[in-house]
Amino acid sequence: MEKIIVEKKVLSENDKLAAEIRTELTSQGILALNFVSSPGSGKTSLLENTLKSIGDKLKIALIAGDVQTENDANRLIAAGGKNVFPLVTGGSCHLDAKMIDKILPKINLDELDLLIIENVGNLVCPSSYDLGEDMKVALISTTEGHDKPLKYPGMFRRSSIMIINKIDLLGTSDFSVDEVKKNARQINANLKFFETSCRTGTGLEMWFHWLLNEIKTKKNRV
Amino acid sequence: MEKIIVEKKVLSENDKLAAEIRTELTSQGILALNFVSSPGSGKTSLLENTLKSIGDKLKIALIAGDVQTENDANRLIAAGGKNVFPLVTGGSCHLDAKMIDKILPKINLDELDLLIIENVGNLVCPSSYDLGEDMKVALISTTEGHDKPLKYPGMFRRSSIMIINKIDLLGTSDFSVDEVKKNARQINANLKFFETSCRTGTGLEMWFHWLLNEIKTKKNRV
Repeated sequence: MEKIIVEKKVLSENDKLAAEIRTELTSQGILALNFVSSPGSGKTSLLENTLKSIGDKLKIALIAGDVQTENDANRLIAAGGKNVFPLVTGGSCHLDAKMIDKILPKINLDELDLLIIENVGNLVCPSSYDLGEDMKVALISTTEGHDKPLKYPGMFRRSSIMIINKIDLLGTSDFSVDEVKKNARQINANLKFFETSCRTGTGLEMWFHWLLNEIKTKKNRV
Repeated sequence: MEKIIVEKKVLSENDKLAAEIRTELTSQGILALNFVSSPGSGKTSLLENTLKSIGDKLKIALIAGDVQTENDANRLIAAGGKNVFPLVTGGSCHLDAKMIDKILPKINLDELDLLIIENVGNLVCPSSYDLGEDMKVALISTTEGHDKPLKYPGMFRRSSIMIINKIDLLGTSDFSVDEVKKNARQINANLKFFETSCRTGTGLEMWFHWLLNEIKTKKNRV
């Protein structure tokens, strides 16, 4: 009971701070996306591709969260990321608003178009922590099994986008795109889907197109 | 700070109960394994194969943990599991000793050879919770990236076995078995490795052989 009360307090403090971050970013017309998935679903690969293809057209800042190592941050820098901030949690299973709030003063928000937060690879805990993002983007890879939205409903309920990645590996298991979409819609009827392969490039153009459009829409609201 | 103190108290209570569970199981010569991995690495597939191949020779009880759904428990029953207990956490990111302690009275421990606990798919949180097992068995699939032991060190430090699964999908990414072993050994020099494919059957015989031997060794200690 004591643990539950403390957790509720932590979450409500987190939500308050996240709301402040959202207000700040929104006032400057910056789109903020929080990328979540299992370990190894391809978050970093998708972001590498995004930087390489449309990175030159945009001012992007990236916060790369991991329990240990700065491997993802280094990959994003190698892919052309100019404002990459590693965020090593040192054991914590998720990012929280306080961690983002500490990094924000280091980022030049003037004329920034997009803030990308790559969360810790974990389909459970990061779902409970609002980071001030506009949307959570959940990745699922075709090697993981199409029942995952039903088994980890919190994450898919709180996400706006679901990217079905490693589409080139369809056929190597009984994973069905139709089934995963059906399962995900049971949890969240408003999910928007993309089907991508970061290895072959399949579907990435549609993702870039959507992203550029969202950035424009957010800017125009200021 | 308040949160940290409460968490430490919860963990120390958990460890005490886990030690009691371990004493009880050990006194009866029952081997207990705690299977951990990312979502979709193949824990249930490995257990299905294990039940089908050596399930008739053994008395096995299985506790199938999931955040939501009894999908895994149903798969294990369909694979021949006779003592399968679903454990739906309803949101919690890991199993704990209290959950196991509640189920144990429902299991007939007389002449039981093996207790298998399939944890929630999560490479972070389950590493902190001792369930009274003899060993944690960590699965990693070849589609996840070979830097995972470095990024989630807690899990690989506290595991005794590392099963590299989906070995049939080698070559579809830059995943290297040598690299993943090298990275894992950096975290835990005592890890024992298996390389398996639940789809083609590669490496499963070695896993069954090891498992049967461990069960025998545990029985002989009583």
